Amino acid sequence: MMTEAEFLVALRRLPLHPGALGLCDDAARLDDLVLTTDTIVEGVHYLPDDVPADVAWKLLAVNLSDLAAKGAAPEGVLLNYPLGDDRWDRAFLEGFGEALNAFGTDILGGDTVALPHGASRFISLTAIGRATVAPARIGARAGDLLYVTGTIGDAGAGLRIALGEDGPAALALAYRRPQPRLTEGRALAPIASAMMDVSDGLLLDAERMAAASGLAVTIELDVIPLSDDCRAFLGDDRTARLTAATAGDDYQLLFAASPDVEPPVPATPIGRFREGAGLGLTDKGTPVPLPDRLGFKH
Amino acid sequence: MMTEAEFLVALRRLPLHPGALGLCDDAARLDDLVLTTDTIVEGVHYLPDDVPADVAWKLLAVNLSDLAAKGAAPEGVLLNYPLGDDRWDRAFLEGFGEALNAFGTDILGGDTVALPHGASRFISLTAIGRATVAPARIGARAGDLLYVTGTIGDAGAGLRIALGEDGPAALALAYRRPQPRLTEGRALAPIASAMMDVSDGLLLDAERMAAASGLAVTIELDVIPLSDDCRAFLGDDRTARLTAATAGDDYQLLFAASPDVEPPVPATPIGRFREGAGLGLTDKGTPVPLPDRLGFKH
Repeated sequence: MMTEAEFLVALRRLPLHPGALGLCDDAARLDDLVLTTDTIVEGVHYLPDDVPADVAWKLLAVNLSDLAAKGAAPEGVLLNYPLGDDRWDRAFLEGFGEALNAFGTDILGGDTVALPHGASRFISLTAIGRATVAPARIGARAGDLLYVTGTIGDAGAGLRIALGEDGPAALALAYRRPQPRLTEGRALAPIASAMMDVSDGLLLDAERMAAASGLAVTIELDVIPLSDDCRAFLGDDRTARLTAATAGDDYQLLFAASPDVEPPVPATPIGRFREGAGLGLTDKGTPVPLPDRLGFKH
Repeated sequence: MMTEAEFLVALRRLPLHPGALGLCDDAARLDDLVLTTDTIVEGVHYLPDDVPADVAWKLLAVNLSDLAAKGAAPEGVLLNYPLGDDRWDRAFLEGFGEALNAFGTDILGGDTVALPHGASRFISLTAIGRATVAPARIGARAGDLLYVTGTIGDAGAGLRIALGEDGPAALALAYRRPQPRLTEGRALAPIASAMMDVSDGLLLDAERMAAASGLAVTIELDVIPLSDDCRAFLGDDRTARLTAATAGDDYQLLFAASPDVEPPVPATPIGRFREGAGLGLTDKGTPVPLPDRLGFKH
């Protein structure tokens, strides 16, 4: 099977729109619009017995998170939906409406297909937002600080709770109902030299931003912000912090900014870009080896 | 299972963007952009042993056909693709590139997922075009003529050939490689009071245009344009014409225009709108009963 990276290499040989930014970003640009699309697959991106309303929420949230990372205000979405089980579909729609209201966005269009008997659900969403300044993934500069909003690792811990472990309800909620950082994204866009969302794991996504920007980045493991609930669930040692920093589904914003600028919304500086290549990790000032796996590649 | 119509009714209760046009059109509007999305599913919209390059062509063609029907010039597309079998995927990409070049459009972005083992492929495409005038499906006026471009029924006959019957290669090609009528669409947009593409069957789609416009339409079966190849394959009696007019995948343009206006590109007047509701059929001036099935509902 081709990996996503191999597929992108092959895709880049085909005719690309200038707004595709060489397929090196999370969203395309067209006029003042930002466009992104994501598919979720039953058994891959969500558990077959997840509540349909949570699946709807997540589908919208993950797409809007890509808009947030470009400082865009959501304009509308197009939904590709497979009609199968009546009860599941109605529950999905109800949750989708709830999520649209929660995030203040509207349906622009879509398409339905019949779900073949026994087939896995594929649900795609295309989200369109409007931005005046849309920071790319490639814009980090040597000397920039790397920041992250909110806390990291809650959703990863929440997945374990969803799979049966005991733990705080707030963590389960972080997994079930991720919050795209739309307000923060719009506030940060004018000062961020690069921005993306943390979807596949903080370390993996930070490495991607550094690679896209042609730089090295070093992350201080001990300053990565963990919630009290996450600390209670995982502990607070190096292993716990590596677990949090390599779990997916955080949907926080990761951005690069000059040390001379104060971010306009709360964010934690967790590292620094410099000339070179690759990801480095320190723990209380001491370099530590990278874990085998930096995050999730779906 | 909910039908697409029932799903749309439920969807209309959720927050809709004004550009969704009440989900009563084939494409959404945002600024001067036209947006449409379509999913094709293995075993539903294409045969499992169809050539991957043909599947890629069809995916692009069906989406661009919706843009054509709104008089839009394609700007770019976003692809949602499931990575599964390496050989199939590479052949798909090659065909996708060929189709992008053929239709003069570019990739804006997309998303890949891993195809679960044994799962049916779902491939979605979102196409974005730019239009100065974008005729809706709802705009037909009483007294307008109903026109169709090109010939009808070729792809339907071609599907039978793809399934094993003997017949002209040109018909098989019409099924395998549909041609979105982009040039015709742009030329017709300024004079069409309503326009849509014929994707699910001429009679079904004409009935939809009439219903959306709050009118009745009568179609003259004997003037529906059939190609010589199609006539040779199907014959030319009433049964043959009904077969052609209820087959899908034509991707010709169906439009309403005042009888005082001469269409700027070749098109055949096949009917007329009047006050009322429903679809009527005549054959050489005599009313004939509607067939049980007006087209394909996927």
